[in-house]
Amino acid sequence: MEKYGGTSVGSVERIQAVARNVAEGVKQGDSLVVVVSAMSGETNRLVDLAKSLANRPSRREMDMLISTGEQVTIALLSLALEDLGIPARSFTGFQVPIQTDSVHGRARITSIEGDAIVSALDSGKVAVVAGFQGVSVDNDITTLGRGGSDTTAVALAVALKADECRIFTDVDGVYTADPRVVEEARRIPRITYEEMLELSGSGAKVMQIRAVEFASKYGVPLRVLSSFEPGEGTLITREENIMEQPMISGITSVDNEAKVTVRGVPDRPGIAYSILGPISDAHINVDMIVQNVSSEETTDLTFTINQDDLDSAMDLLAPVVRELEAETVVGDRNLAKISVVGVGMRSHAGIATTMFRALADKGINIQMISTSEIKISVTIDREYSELALRALHSAFRLEESAKKGG
Amino acid sequence: MEKYGGTSVGSVERIQAVARNVAEGVKQGDSLVVVVSAMSGETNRLVDLAKSLANRPSRREMDMLISTGEQVTIALLSLALEDLGIPARSFTGFQVPIQTDSVHGRARITSIEGDAIVSALDSGKVAVVAGFQGVSVDNDITTLGRGGSDTTAVALAVALKADECRIFTDVDGVYTADPRVVEEARRIPRITYEEMLELSGSGAKVMQIRAVEFASKYGVPLRVLSSFEPGEGTLITREENIMEQPMISGITSVDNEAKVTVRGVPDRPGIAYSILGPISDAHINVDMIVQNVSSEETTDLTFTINQDDLDSAMDLLAPVVRELEAETVVGDRNLAKISVVGVGMRSHAGIATTMFRALADKGINIQMISTSEIKISVTIDREYSELALRALHSAFRLEESAKKGG
Repeated sequence: MEKYGGTSVGSVERIQAVARNVAEGVKQGDSLVVVVSAMSGETNRLVDLAKSLANRPSRREMDMLISTGEQVTIALLSLALEDLGIPARSFTGFQVPIQTDSVHGRARITSIEGDAIVSALDSGKVAVVAGFQGVSVDNDITTLGRGGSDTTAVALAVALKADECRIFTDVDGVYTADPRVVEEARRIPRITYEEMLELSGSGAKVMQIRAVEFASKYGVPLRVLSSFEPGEGTLITREENIMEQPMISGITSVDNEAKVTVRGVPDRPGIAYSILGPISDAHINVDMIVQNVSSEETTDLTFTINQDDLDSAMDLLAPVVRELEAETVVGDRNLAKISVVGVGMRSHAGIATTMFRALADKGINIQMISTSEIKISVTIDREYSELALRALHSAFRLEESAKKGG
Repeated sequence: MEKYGGTSVGSVERIQAVARNVAEGVKQGDSLVVVVSAMSGETNRLVDLAKSLANRPSRREMDMLISTGEQVTIALLSLALEDLGIPARSFTGFQVPIQTDSVHGRARITSIEGDAIVSALDSGKVAVVAGFQGVSVDNDITTLGRGGSDTTAVALAVALKADECRIFTDVDGVYTADPRVVEEARRIPRITYEEMLELSGSGAKVMQIRAVEFASKYGVPLRVLSSFEPGEGTLITREENIMEQPMISGITSVDNEAKVTVRGVPDRPGIAYSILGPISDAHINVDMIVQNVSSEETTDLTFTINQDDLDSAMDLLAPVVRELEAETVVGDRNLAKISVVGVGMRSHAGIATTMFRALADKGINIQMISTSEIKISVTIDREYSELALRALHSAFRLEESAKKGG
């Protein structure tokens, strides 16, 4: 199973490069299923066409429209493969079929019938499958939402019991930190599903959470590789498959969050719900939530959201604050969230201490702290974001651990 | 049933115009099925992409690729309709389904299941159907070949027992002759299927032969209209539905044919086959075939083909001529075929005489003559083509008959 994203198939030349890559695998005797995205830019072109025609385009018709992007790519890649003498057969979502529910724009896969693909493989063909799309029980074309092509690849790998699901992208693996910020950042040879989930959820853009969850649930080994350079990439697998586990796998930062603090809230049951209910009803995603233990009769509740949602959230909370007789509500766009992730936290004490000391040494003030079993996140002033990443990368010696972990 | 071609949906603005047109029909209480082509230019764009990837692209993958063109249009038109408050539902070929055989690139419709469309109509929606495409028994996407969207519209009209199939195009009907050449040319209000078939086969580009044949077979009234201007267009129907039939309906010319003459062929059985067999085996379409009655022991055989095929035909015939011990073979690109068409020929004598006299009066030499029940075609020197059209239009008084025929 191989999956190529939009930039990997973004031009005729890149489609030819992918075809040569696939041909290599075929010559080594692999039975290959290849999942592809729309050529980069194509989905945006189609969305712009739709926006010029309708203010609130129906989701069904949007799926009908944008699913053509992947259909074009599967045909072109099949043609490129056949031109190299590699027999190929393209499959849209309905031809596999990839059955989904009927939630257009963010459908969930309900089942995959693998027979048609197996039959193509058995006849010596490469199966080229459109990512991101499926078909509902009503025979409607659906799309899976952001990162849908990764999900398609993993779901197909599960259905077809593939040995490995290789995700080809524009980076050559998962890094200990963003290499554009931290020069010493290293590619991680192996990482657990759990760590990958926390890294993805904390700002690493390599893989979509949904696909990793899916792979984790069914134990499909994932490998993130570059479509442009050779290399081993990063293997995402179960913890027991990783011999020597570093304490910390990686460090991430998120710069597009804002924080909302409701101060002086009377401390009684139901307060969190009163405040966060209206936010959730408005489909605003809340990330971190921190409520301090109150010493007086009031408490402060702070949460983070995407900064694009800050204005709406402030508007929504104004009447709530009055009703609750809270003191005030304040918003702040000027923050970054920094997370350290590693399953080693489970068995090693002192990770938090190391983290907090490293930040203190650089004079960086911590605003909020939130922890999970294998992650510690803090928010800080945004201008310290890059400094914090580098300080933590060095404090946890990630430039060494990644080398060792292979 | 309405069908809009590529230029009618060639831009966002034109799709909006089509949507307004459809909305008018809906407001008049019509239950509407709308068939659309790909936006003009889109199919060529996709074909160019394919050509840059493969020298001999597989027909299955070409169908997969170019069928996306119509899928984009159905989604966009549905969005435009919904934006006008008209509920709509788009259908690809597989969703209708429009079942075809498996001959990719020029599939034939084998059956249409109308239930899904009827259900959309019953719930008050406009059904917007992708023209040109279908689905084979193997669940493969197929395309119907040139003029396929017209065929889709007619086949759907038959399957759904539509009152009329309106073909919206960039001209406002069928004309007695090409108005760019003959200033006096008139729109024909009504014409028979047979005449339309002969006109289409003789150079009139308004409708594809296949769709007219289909409509004729099932007696579906066709109406050719402009998508840009209001008007009654041309109704194509059964002869008995046309009260006052002019002798001649229209005059056409074809300027892209070439003629091949094999001279001095020994006159014995099987000669025509020996000469035309290799031409047909090379998939070269032969139009007119004329063999003169031989007075000596040899005869001359002349036929016309597309001028692009002349070189291949000459190459193919060189050995044939030697084998048959014929005198020589000569090719001529410099000709035009002029045809007069009309069911009135069946009951009126002297049509041929009028035609030949009109040409003689202008000093135009006739090279070949070929007749069918309702058509007379001649080939002449190409430089007289426009003069001949105007002379014949005037000789048959078509500027009057068309007015009268309404």
